[in-house]
Amino acid sequence: MDDLSTPAFLVDRDIVTRNCDRMRAKAERSGVAFRPHVKTHKVAEIGRLQHGGAAGPITVSTLAEAEHFAAAGFGDITYAVPIAPAKLERAAALGRAIERLNILVDSQAALQAVESFAGERPGTVFDVFLKVDCGYHRAGVDPSRPESVQLALALSRSSAVRFRGLLTHAGHSYNSLTTAEVLAIAKQETAAVTNFAATLAQEGAGELVRSIGSTPTCTHAESFTDCDEVRPGNYVFFDAFQATLGSCSMSDVAVSVLTTVVGCYPDREELIVDAAALALSKDPGPNLIDPTFGYGLVCDLELRPQPLKLIALSQEHGKIEVEGNAARWPVGTRLRIVPNHSCLTAAMYDRYAVLSAGQLVDEWRPVRGW
Amino acid sequence: MDDLSTPAFLVDRDIVTRNCDRMRAKAERSGVAFRPHVKTHKVAEIGRLQHGGAAGPITVSTLAEAEHFAAAGFGDITYAVPIAPAKLERAAALGRAIERLNILVDSQAALQAVESFAGERPGTVFDVFLKVDCGYHRAGVDPSRPESVQLALALSRSSAVRFRGLLTHAGHSYNSLTTAEVLAIAKQETAAVTNFAATLAQEGAGELVRSIGSTPTCTHAESFTDCDEVRPGNYVFFDAFQATLGSCSMSDVAVSVLTTVVGCYPDREELIVDAAALALSKDPGPNLIDPTFGYGLVCDLELRPQPLKLIALSQEHGKIEVEGNAARWPVGTRLRIVPNHSCLTAAMYDRYAVLSAGQLVDEWRPVRGW
Repeated sequence: MDDLSTPAFLVDRDIVTRNCDRMRAKAERSGVAFRPHVKTHKVAEIGRLQHGGAAGPITVSTLAEAEHFAAAGFGDITYAVPIAPAKLERAAALGRAIERLNILVDSQAALQAVESFAGERPGTVFDVFLKVDCGYHRAGVDPSRPESVQLALALSRSSAVRFRGLLTHAGHSYNSLTTAEVLAIAKQETAAVTNFAATLAQEGAGELVRSIGSTPTCTHAESFTDCDEVRPGNYVFFDAFQATLGSCSMSDVAVSVLTTVVGCYPDREELIVDAAALALSKDPGPNLIDPTFGYGLVCDLELRPQPLKLIALSQEHGKIEVEGNAARWPVGTRLRIVPNHSCLTAAMYDRYAVLSAGQLVDEWRPVRGW
Repeated sequence: MDDLSTPAFLVDRDIVTRNCDRMRAKAERSGVAFRPHVKTHKVAEIGRLQHGGAAGPITVSTLAEAEHFAAAGFGDITYAVPIAPAKLERAAALGRAIERLNILVDSQAALQAVESFAGERPGTVFDVFLKVDCGYHRAGVDPSRPESVQLALALSRSSAVRFRGLLTHAGHSYNSLTTAEVLAIAKQETAAVTNFAATLAQEGAGELVRSIGSTPTCTHAESFTDCDEVRPGNYVFFDAFQATLGSCSMSDVAVSVLTTVVGCYPDREELIVDAAALALSKDPGPNLIDPTFGYGLVCDLELRPQPLKLIALSQEHGKIEVEGNAARWPVGTRLRIVPNHSCLTAAMYDRYAVLSAGQLVDEWRPVRGW
């Protein structure tokens, strides 16, 4: 680790493996299909760790991820953002190249785009999930509205579509302040797809996969019930936010940013480190739960938290407020920062430094872009 | 532009050229040296536009930028972040390969590291600027303290150092609410280096370059006085924040993010677009001046602002609050988002789509990493 130039993104492979095994075991124990999200890490090696070595079913957030993982042998992929009509051509090409690419639709307009595209290309059929809103109010249809039932039935009847199931994401669990709130939202998440699937079954929509998944709801749940498939993602790395939220302990967080003190100002009790907005992202993390948290948890090389608060990030200067004598951390001191939001921090790097038993053992290259 | 997959980072070369010419003309008119920052764009082509075609003196924020621009023919570079001792070897190698690499020091500890490194490698001499704090309180020595004078004199006497000058950056101008405040800070910025240089001249420190620069202070100033060199950076692109601050008008902003509506929810008056945290960064931008601003200015393809507010960014879903009927922007509609902070947004892309007279004319590749 001494030879790494800072800032560097460190991934503890032992912790990643443990996090992966634990979540996969819970899914197996619960008898549900496991389709983890890979957007947090975007690395084929970790995709395999999520499945105990196999290139199993995955969820992605971009077509670039889908194509990268397909090239690495992953053949069953759900692209979990509502599809833009202009991306149907790329999706169709990838769908032909692998076993299955599921796309997401949540509007009549998108279905029309799918049908129009397929209509001009005989033999084209898309595997489609209907995105359902379980209370997060980001994407997805409101399952209580008659139009949503109509859209689902239109999907089940469309010759351009193999209607695979209902997919929801309880992103609002990230705004919970307590475990009880997370668990209440987990119930909303499964209820949304279970109740809607029951309604659609009465209407003759056929068998539908009920797919759920967010890291807070998946980690807080003892087991998975009232669903057929789970799609957690952040659990692979976790982060300071998930630890504050109680999804994990700080020792479960697999990633940190290695940084160097480049400025030490004892008279104003501050340090400057060389990890800032481009090395960490400006995600405010757990500030809803703890407004004093700062832009990441500043630790020593053994990941022991220090009395140092990362209070401001410009592009390449991270500003730390020191409790005590700043001279304890002179210029050249190396620190590790546990990121607030590992998905956004990981995305700032073209390579990850991989550790095992504290030693540098590998380098992983994530896919980037769209 | 129709063929671009979204999200895409659009750079209007005509506006970039105009912004570049205007700032360079002001520096020439003022009779000061011009060493623009390239951290905003990280593209060699734009570095040349900043100098009217030449590979002139530049400022960088990472050694990766320095090496990239050196390979593209730029031979006079200032690395404007206090140097980490472990980076001296890379800096020395680059300094040997080009005409001059200036590094930054603001502590006795850093000077000791420089002297220790040079002591073990006969003939090694670093070109050094002393970083001076003009009130931003990020990096830099307090010019009013006797230790700062002592450090400057130690630099002027060190055989490991060619002491080049004093460098300051009025980053606190970004927190100004009025033009009057920006102009007051611009005076602080020049006064800090001018007064300190005068003190050091009396102590026999020799001739020192007084280097200043921040985009707000450099754009608001009619001309540059009481300094020898200016280093603005963001002015090349500008952004929604600089326009709100009055550094430019919105028509001077050269960049935008092309995005597609992927979800349209008239019942809750919201849209989802495919540009979010990884396509824009989560910089809050001008929220100090206008708390209702959102994560970027949402415009149509002709850059006319729309009654749409970007209220939340997850990794790949950008959530827009609609004033009026969301159905006006159906799924598939393309929009352009003027970013809050162009430096952080540009850094999310491996390629820029270059426009001239509204047509796609080129693709530029920025350097990334550290």
